[in-house]
Amino acid sequence: MAQTRQWRLASRPVGEPTHDDFELVTVDRPAPGDGEVLVKTLYQSVDPYMRGRMRDAESYADPWEVGEPMRAGVIGEVLESEADALEPGDVVTGELLWAEHAVADADDLRRVDPDLGPVSTALGVLGMPGVTAYWGLLDVGEPTPGDTVVVSAAAGAVGSVVGQLAQLAGARVVGTAGSDEKVAWLTDELGFDAAINYKETDDLAGAVAETCPDGVDVYFDNVGGPITDAVWPQLNVRSRVVVCGQIALYNATEVPTGPRKLTKLIETRATVEGVLVSDYEDRWGEALRRLSRFIREGDLHYRENVVDGFENAPDAFLGLFEGENVGKQLVKVADRSTETQ
Amino acid sequence: MAQTRQWRLASRPVGEPTHDDFELVTVDRPAPGDGEVLVKTLYQSVDPYMRGRMRDAESYADPWEVGEPMRAGVIGEVLESEADALEPGDVVTGELLWAEHAVADADDLRRVDPDLGPVSTALGVLGMPGVTAYWGLLDVGEPTPGDTVVVSAAAGAVGSVVGQLAQLAGARVVGTAGSDEKVAWLTDELGFDAAINYKETDDLAGAVAETCPDGVDVYFDNVGGPITDAVWPQLNVRSRVVVCGQIALYNATEVPTGPRKLTKLIETRATVEGVLVSDYEDRWGEALRRLSRFIREGDLHYRENVVDGFENAPDAFLGLFEGENVGKQLVKVADRSTETQ
Repeated sequence: MAQTRQWRLASRPVGEPTHDDFELVTVDRPAPGDGEVLVKTLYQSVDPYMRGRMRDAESYADPWEVGEPMRAGVIGEVLESEADALEPGDVVTGELLWAEHAVADADDLRRVDPDLGPVSTALGVLGMPGVTAYWGLLDVGEPTPGDTVVVSAAAGAVGSVVGQLAQLAGARVVGTAGSDEKVAWLTDELGFDAAINYKETDDLAGAVAETCPDGVDVYFDNVGGPITDAVWPQLNVRSRVVVCGQIALYNATEVPTGPRKLTKLIETRATVEGVLVSDYEDRWGEALRRLSRFIREGDLHYRENVVDGFENAPDAFLGLFEGENVGKQLVKVADRSTETQ
Repeated sequence: MAQTRQWRLASRPVGEPTHDDFELVTVDRPAPGDGEVLVKTLYQSVDPYMRGRMRDAESYADPWEVGEPMRAGVIGEVLESEADALEPGDVVTGELLWAEHAVADADDLRRVDPDLGPVSTALGVLGMPGVTAYWGLLDVGEPTPGDTVVVSAAAGAVGSVVGQLAQLAGARVVGTAGSDEKVAWLTDELGFDAAINYKETDDLAGAVAETCPDGVDVYFDNVGGPITDAVWPQLNVRSRVVVCGQIALYNATEVPTGPRKLTKLIETRATVEGVLVSDYEDRWGEALRRLSRFIREGDLHYRENVVDGFENAPDAFLGLFEGENVGKQLVKVADRSTETQ
């Protein structure tokens, strides 16, 4: 019987995850049941939110179980189909497994439209991160022309889209990132008004104040912790804080502490709101159509950081916490086996 | 020339204010200019927000100056008028001074309508605290029937109105307060579903979880700090946090720290928003009419804690931070001098 490989959660990490928390196992390739398809993974996503799934804690999604395969956004090719809606050769995306092959209900998959862009973008700028950026900024952040928008992890998969959409909305855009290479990408190629390398800045609050002389109207927060502490004092009256990610805190072994921030909200009547892309299931296509048009028209640029080889998936994931990726972090698992593009 | 007394800010307090920060001075009674009136103070308000005015820091209002009279909500009687709109004997309210007499522009005063309730209520349930509660809860908190609403400082001037309005909106109401007397008032007289004496509770988070088995849909926060930390884990999906006051933090001498809270907002897409009553200047009368109707119909109860004598105003203010007041804290300064009720 044909076989396949899966990455399983070997143990729940304490603090920063290590390779010991992952186990590569070889299993029989599953066969699709009625209404299901067998999918060969072409690209697998690794995302910061996965750190939360490794924790045995109630959240917006169930935690992963130790000894079980982990779940991931996947772009794959249908190899076998027992569903009317899909046939072998179709390229699909959905939440599958950290696996070379997996079976899925056809209803849980989305067909990747090759007219929108390269298929890999279905995990990045035209996938979960892009849709998160789109609705998080436009539905929650609501930038208006002349606003100053600050985005943290601005060179990441979500942040880079947020910053460019904010520019399209007529805002002044300032980003934070963790390397000079990222800062250069943001300011020189994406046209951000300013970018701050937080790792090289002693006075982060001063740097935010200096680059945002009119204060901050929208803060799109992917990071949390000290970067957020530095932005907070600059919040304007009626400003909006979009809490999208808190990657600075995800590996904490004790409850992270920091300055209490709520008094500032009385002074400013700022609104702080969390965003989760699953709330926008019904408006996914609307975001994709806009984002793909912006790409075609040259108004939206993206980068992908592709690690080659399924065996390197944990490396790609661990690299997220080191800030190694510029743009979307992907794992390339296989080439398409058919020529039916 | 007739004289009057004023309380002036003697020094900016560090940490908890003391009597040394206040200075009682006797000055000539001022005379009203064109369009102005001379007001004799009947009641003076002391409020937690005043602690912020003692600080030399930019906020939503200018700080008080050392050596100058402090400002306060006052109910007073017009003694002399150089304005067409007001005449001697009229009872008015406005932001005047910690003083037995003060001059004010008639345009900055609101006439107290004796049909709405006893005049002293114009500084409490039918004044700034009541209007804050009304719009903070109904415009920002937006409770719906079946919601669980938690309010901190629930026996205070704002919190007691918030809790009763939430009941009128069909919500289950849980309050926190700092004495058994307050807890008894909330549950036995105001009909709260539960109340927690936070000073006598070792496991505050557990007490909130126990009294809110369906989680928290609206948290109206007057206190901040550990009480807020205890409520936060119980926030429901799409819940609303109204940040109205943070009295637990106002006397801090270093930047107060605590658990970082923003990750919870991603899990719940809860909204956190500050409220400031001055944003509702245009809707003040609307709130007063409703509140006075609720009082007349027996649906809204209130208490006032009256300290007698202008010389005791600093005591009344300092007592706020000890949680001494049940309901609105007032200073009675003088009786009405006329019989024209």
